[in-house]
Amino acid sequence: MANYKLTIQYVGTKYNGWQRQGNTENTIQGKLEAILERLFTIPVEVIGSGRTDAGAHAFGQIANFHVPIEMEPEEILEYLNRYLPKDIAVSHVERVPDRFHSRFNVKRKTYQYRIWNSCISNVFEKNFVYELAEPLNIDRMKEAALYWIGEHDFKAFCSNKRLKKSTIRTIYEINIEELEPEIRITITGNGFLYNMVRIMVGTLIEIGMGEKLPSDVPAMLAGKDRRNAGFTAPSSGLMLMEVEY
Amino acid sequence: MANYKLTIQYVGTKYNGWQRQGNTENTIQGKLEAILERLFTIPVEVIGSGRTDAGAHAFGQIANFHVPIEMEPEEILEYLNRYLPKDIAVSHVERVPDRFHSRFNVKRKTYQYRIWNSCISNVFEKNFVYELAEPLNIDRMKEAALYWIGEHDFKAFCSNKRLKKSTIRTIYEINIEELEPEIRITITGNGFLYNMVRIMVGTLIEIGMGEKLPSDVPAMLAGKDRRNAGFTAPSSGLMLMEVEY
Repeated sequence: MANYKLTIQYVGTKYNGWQRQGNTENTIQGKLEAILERLFTIPVEVIGSGRTDAGAHAFGQIANFHVPIEMEPEEILEYLNRYLPKDIAVSHVERVPDRFHSRFNVKRKTYQYRIWNSCISNVFEKNFVYELAEPLNIDRMKEAALYWIGEHDFKAFCSNKRLKKSTIRTIYEINIEELEPEIRITITGNGFLYNMVRIMVGTLIEIGMGEKLPSDVPAMLAGKDRRNAGFTAPSSGLMLMEVEY
Repeated sequence: MANYKLTIQYVGTKYNGWQRQGNTENTIQGKLEAILERLFTIPVEVIGSGRTDAGAHAFGQIANFHVPIEMEPEEILEYLNRYLPKDIAVSHVERVPDRFHSRFNVKRKTYQYRIWNSCISNVFEKNFVYELAEPLNIDRMKEAALYWIGEHDFKAFCSNKRLKKSTIRTIYEINIEELEPEIRITITGNGFLYNMVRIMVGTLIEIGMGEKLPSDVPAMLAGKDRRNAGFTAPSSGLMLMEVEY
């Protein structure tokens, strides 16, 4: 028995997200599994660190899989990259202890969200940004972000209404960079709920536009009601940067 | 009468290059002219600083057009960006003296060519690089590049066999940067012949792979024979960076 850990990059534009769903094979997980099954000639289940949404991207998604056959990591890397579509690449393969689980063992995850804040399109990176021409007040966005730092119940910032599991998460860091005309938001936490980053970003955007106040955030957290938070920002601007164990 | 100068960015992947050609309207020039004709309700001829090949890109292409109607540059900018496809954007519009001609008045042009030198694809920028897994000897490429600096007859580095015009050009600078695993070649000159940058890059690649020697370059220049130079590197890696007047 061998357990392999993969580091994966992808452009999510053409895919229905990370997770294989029934017959929908147009997912990143589905593409990886199909190729690994050919390589190992047995069914392979690829366990991701978590889902990414349709249209969202990854620079450092992590996954692992168990197989009864040992193979050189370099051989797996080459085989996968030879057959993967051009918008998915495996940047690293390593053998890990059997107990390693890419979802259960996550310590920190970092997401980046890119807003192209200009009336002139970013022709070169249009699939990687959310284009928004309205001016944003960055100071207010930074002020709002501080309220999320630490451990909170993020139920208001989650799309899944029927969630029974804990909605408590810890946010370690939120960085809002001004790269004229881009605004880049980087969020690190111990885990994220369904659509959580996109709803946090949507809330920040509404605050930046003056539709909401930074001081509204504590009430949103306390109220635990999705309707109080901002809109769900489009998936195109979202990139899973790093998963730490 | 008014003369307007445009700065244009585009992703050339889907287009048949800059220049309008008969019925082929899928060109950058064609797209700009169609929109300007709607705005000014008269035929408009957009003069580019030069052609770019099918599949090649521009960060700072320059063009100008004459119209008998004066309009605010800001208004032209907004109208163009509203109707242009998402892979073409106008980043600047200004009124210039009537005598300004974007092709005849060029002083310097800078092109960039990006080689992704890795067996792991660049999923995020695949349309902007030429992917090449073979290792390249950068020192030899840098040595070869020195032979092109200055004024030379570049006939051997031109695809157009029936060219009657002068094939003498001056190269001011060639920069070869190592951005592991990317190799970025930046070339500035007073003008470039048809496919000249791509043939120079193809020659550099063959030198980097050891198929040709840096010291072969002077003989290529002197021989003026296209067959002595390297292959024409793919257009995807090529970007017109800047045009100076």
